[in-house]
Amino acid sequence: MDKERLKKQLEFTLEMDKLKYIERQSYVADGSRHENDSEHSWHLALMAMLFSEYANEKVDVLHVIKMVLIHDAVEIDAGDTYAYDTAGNATKREREEKAADRIFNILPEDQAKEMRALWEEFEAGETPEAKFANALDRVQPIMLNDITDGRAWREHGVAAEQVLARNANTHKGSETLWEHVESLVAKNKELGNLK
Amino acid sequence: MDKERLKKQLEFTLEMDKLKYIERQSYVADGSRHENDSEHSWHLALMAMLFSEYANEKVDVLHVIKMVLIHDAVEIDAGDTYAYDTAGNATKREREEKAADRIFNILPEDQAKEMRALWEEFEAGETPEAKFANALDRVQPIMLNDITDGRAWREHGVAAEQVLARNANTHKGSETLWEHVESLVAKNKELGNLK
Repeated sequence: MDKERLKKQLEFTLEMDKLKYIERQSYVADGSRHENDSEHSWHLALMAMLFSEYANEKVDVLHVIKMVLIHDAVEIDAGDTYAYDTAGNATKREREEKAADRIFNILPEDQAKEMRALWEEFEAGETPEAKFANALDRVQPIMLNDITDGRAWREHGVAAEQVLARNANTHKGSETLWEHVESLVAKNKELGNLK
Repeated sequence: MDKERLKKQLEFTLEMDKLKYIERQSYVADGSRHENDSEHSWHLALMAMLFSEYANEKVDVLHVIKMVLIHDAVEIDAGDTYAYDTAGNATKREREEKAADRIFNILPEDQAKEMRALWEEFEAGETPEAKFANALDRVQPIMLNDITDGRAWREHGVAAEQVLARNANTHKGSETLWEHVESLVAKNKELGNLK
């Protein structure tokens, strides 16, 4: 056994624990508190396993899950940028690349490269797996907003058009999930949860 | 598209959100609060992806990840039973079977059967994947105890022998992870974090 290799993998595992403290804007389903990145990532992995039949193209489920498990790792340094924060989103890519350079390189070189490639693939959103993973990442907070009477949306004064614009690529990953987004947005606009 | 099928899958996804409120005895790595089941499950899935090279037998990583993502689902009804709670562990199986009957059956029948089979496989701990998944499930809280100066162990007055007994099967999943457990237990006994 290569002790140095194991040590790096254990160190990365503990570094990633920090995703448990990074709060998102979404609330958990009972509305008691904000969701954090590790919970969100687990929820997406669960959805990847259960909803893969709705991906437009056949996807490698393990590959989708690997992507969603680490897709927010860069937020350990770069923080969570709210979907509808225009200023924050302007500097997001630069901050996140710097974070990726540090965080993934805690791992042994082969795994650092694999994790970086998974993250870049997710960000680019071009492969069938990345398109589907991105669709899940968009749909899950909408489900949580819907079940909490649009709580995070109302707090930020989000408009239905903004949610639909943010979900412009969801149909590329899954027409079925896109239809579900449309129905939830229409319902919440009707209810006044979305402007 | 089968709307009834999608509806059940969405309902299960929201039901599973409750794992975000089920507290474990372990603390997150900075010691600020207890870890919850969804965070723990995400951490195990991440470890399954990064540590599969240390499984004694070749494992199907997707299968391991599926198991760890849902292995605590029954705790939504049955609650978390602390590893060193003898009375709680006596009634654990009965409470958890009843929970499995309800929770997995929210899903369409084929997926309900798949999730139930994954959970039973994890509990039995006999396949290479289940042995490895169980090893991860034992090692992760030890890592968190170690990094928090044995906080949960000290609070419950846990002895080194109890941790080793609880990890009696860890070597079946991974000799490497078992060696890591032994070294962490020895270190924490020396430090007085374990009796």
